[in-house]
Amino acid sequence: MLRKILVIGAGKSTSYLLDYFLEKAESEQLQITIGDLHPEMIPSRIKNQVACEIIQLDIFDEALRKNLISQSNIVVSMLPASLHILVARDCIALKKHLVTASYISKELKEISPAAEQKGLIFMNEMGLDPGIDHMSAMQVIDRIREKGGKMLLFESFTGGLVAPESDTNLWNYKFTWNPRNVVLAGQGGTAKFIQEGTYKYIPYHRLFRRTEYFEIEGYGRFEGYANRDSLNYREAYGLQDVLTLYRGTLRRVGFSKAWNIFVQLGMTDDSYVIENSEKMSFRDYTNLFLPYSPTDSVELKLRHYLKIDQDDIVWEKLLELNLFDSKKTIPLVKASPAQMLQYILEQKWSLGDDDKDMIVMYHKFGYELDGEKRQIDSNMVVTGKNRTHTAMAKTLGLPVAMATLAILNKKITTPGVQIPIRKEVYKPILAELQKYHIRFREYDVPYFGYNPDTQII
Amino acid sequence: MLRKILVIGAGKSTSYLLDYFLEKAESEQLQITIGDLHPEMIPSRIKNQVACEIIQLDIFDEALRKNLISQSNIVVSMLPASLHILVARDCIALKKHLVTASYISKELKEISPAAEQKGLIFMNEMGLDPGIDHMSAMQVIDRIREKGGKMLLFESFTGGLVAPESDTNLWNYKFTWNPRNVVLAGQGGTAKFIQEGTYKYIPYHRLFRRTEYFEIEGYGRFEGYANRDSLNYREAYGLQDVLTLYRGTLRRVGFSKAWNIFVQLGMTDDSYVIENSEKMSFRDYTNLFLPYSPTDSVELKLRHYLKIDQDDIVWEKLLELNLFDSKKTIPLVKASPAQMLQYILEQKWSLGDDDKDMIVMYHKFGYELDGEKRQIDSNMVVTGKNRTHTAMAKTLGLPVAMATLAILNKKITTPGVQIPIRKEVYKPILAELQKYHIRFREYDVPYFGYNPDTQII
Repeated sequence: MLRKILVIGAGKSTSYLLDYFLEKAESEQLQITIGDLHPEMIPSRIKNQVACEIIQLDIFDEALRKNLISQSNIVVSMLPASLHILVARDCIALKKHLVTASYISKELKEISPAAEQKGLIFMNEMGLDPGIDHMSAMQVIDRIREKGGKMLLFESFTGGLVAPESDTNLWNYKFTWNPRNVVLAGQGGTAKFIQEGTYKYIPYHRLFRRTEYFEIEGYGRFEGYANRDSLNYREAYGLQDVLTLYRGTLRRVGFSKAWNIFVQLGMTDDSYVIENSEKMSFRDYTNLFLPYSPTDSVELKLRHYLKIDQDDIVWEKLLELNLFDSKKTIPLVKASPAQMLQYILEQKWSLGDDDKDMIVMYHKFGYELDGEKRQIDSNMVVTGKNRTHTAMAKTLGLPVAMATLAILNKKITTPGVQIPIRKEVYKPILAELQKYHIRFREYDVPYFGYNPDTQII
Repeated sequence: MLRKILVIGAGKSTSYLLDYFLEKAESEQLQITIGDLHPEMIPSRIKNQVACEIIQLDIFDEALRKNLISQSNIVVSMLPASLHILVARDCIALKKHLVTASYISKELKEISPAAEQKGLIFMNEMGLDPGIDHMSAMQVIDRIREKGGKMLLFESFTGGLVAPESDTNLWNYKFTWNPRNVVLAGQGGTAKFIQEGTYKYIPYHRLFRRTEYFEIEGYGRFEGYANRDSLNYREAYGLQDVLTLYRGTLRRVGFSKAWNIFVQLGMTDDSYVIENSEKMSFRDYTNLFLPYSPTDSVELKLRHYLKIDQDDIVWEKLLELNLFDSKKTIPLVKASPAQMLQYILEQKWSLGDDDKDMIVMYHKFGYELDGEKRQIDSNMVVTGKNRTHTAMAKTLGLPVAMATLAILNKKITTPGVQIPIRKEVYKPILAELQKYHIRFREYDVPYFGYNPDTQII
């Protein structure tokens, strides 16, 4: 019997997701319906498939939305996170399973009892980060516990970067995802984590100066800055007693120090509108954040204001972005500082057609077993093919697709609103991801921890 | 005929306000009714006056509130700013004038047409800052214009400080006003102003590093940091075309550099709660914002983190506050970083019984007259008597009291929700304030401006 999958929202990140379904359509007897506001944007490679039906769907068109959901066996929502709840409520009413790659919202959490009661699986955070991070972490944590080990430390970092062969600028960075999210990264609250049993708090304006360093075999050095709330998954992972819990974002070494210049100047602020932003030159934009002077140049003012030495490489990074160019202008009307900065960055950091992105994930597990402290380092590196088939789309889309099929095939059976931390979920999916070259390398290393035996603070 | 003044809210800042009314009670035929939630807190000096009646008033007791307002000729609201609107609506209904020292809220602005229609005067921002700043600025600006001058520049700074004879700590600062407002000062938005026709924006985390300096004859040097929005009164003052518009807060030189340490660490953040705040030592509190180390001391970590030289005086300022003390504890439950910092500061910065506060206001007016650029500097310094009769209470309360009487005596007649920028308001009140030694000293000085003729930016 044909199983019907409804995919709502077919944006750029769904290339691998749809390819997976279509590749399995015959063997798994799948019929794919794609509901999207802009069906004309869907590539013909997908459109022309027999197993695939495309329907224009405005998500606020309740009648059509419910109609499509009622005809499906399972729903995949790739909508913006805030809209999942519309689909989820229909799924409750129409008794359909649901898969998303987004964080669980408060509203979604509230309908978990209803989903459980009806035996429905609402699988969320089923992409890369959140998603693969949950699964790969829980697999190691469960293994440590099954051996009788006690978790002491968990650190986890993920970054969407550019592959070495496409790494052509001084920042070692290009936009491989929503640029707006990159510009606003770290805002909206103090970063909070635990190190050796001590709570630590980093305000946004210091975030990019409190990085940690990592070496990943074959890929060189990376740095990580703390995510807003490392403690979110403390209960979910069962890590209430660990001494160190730290989650962060990975960049190439040196990125954060240079990015901090934007933060210090106030260029990443999205909370107000710049007067007369339209047609402002890059130079005038930079000067908005510097003291007035009748004589000194914007360059000297910036160097002095942020104490940037003459031979500091960060200066070359600013020049590369044309931050002092008085000819180049920003065409945005009533724009915030962050929107204007994004425009400037997009001129240099956009992915070229043949550019390859790279996803790097890094976990550190510290634990005690048989009276001995031990450590496992684990990492995953995935490189994209080109601008369409990115590592980002692959690592986001494949877990979603695999979870959808696993639910259809009753490999995943626990009902309720959930994230992929159960063995019945992560085991088959991590195994299948390996076939697509999404795999972790694990290293048993000496426990480094934070030298807690000599703790003097 | 006896005129009845209803004063709602008789907190600490009303000492001079009430004294003024009582002093004038006989000659001006005044009857004062004080409505307050805690009448027992009102000093007997005031309670025992024949001209004074005290009534316990819960501002949300609509019947009593309306009853009291209906019996009065004019109402003075010294309530928290957000509650004025309750009183104002009654004043519209019952046809009473109203005086407050607070900023005009959106709700209050909306009822201005109703007030005008009924011929009612709702005078606001009638204290020190806002209040005396408006009046003293407009008096000079109007005079320059009457001579045919064109305004080029306006800068204005006010500070609530401690008088030199009571200045006994390294910060040259004590709390002479609501400490919470001092801890949160500068938050809630980017500071915005104009210098020589160029908009300038300073994010909060740089605010205390972008100070300007002033010398005030007989009182030494001060520094000023920018207020959140210097452009608020651009239209009200008729300064749409000035090249420089800058409003700020005054401190003694060196305060801001040291305060910036708290800002950088994240100690002034009021947006989240510290885990286990209760009984945390001052040292542990400081350590929350520093990187973890098994070996390094909190002192060294802080020095290194913020690059504080060994001989930098800011270090002594931190020591004076016992910021590294592991014995002293903070008794606050579920407190924010800002609340905990406030507690630490209050141990050292509270005003003693005999301590004298000091208000400093400084204006700079640049203008062009007869083809020549000129400048007027103007300043006011007021010193308090003791912890009750503060310069703050005096400069806040007297203008309110004087405006109330001036309205009763029909010296002020223009109806509507307004601030004291009209000559009919500022002229008599500034003149009367002089009798109470609240006066401005004016200096004609060479135009300093920002050297706009050689402008190269």
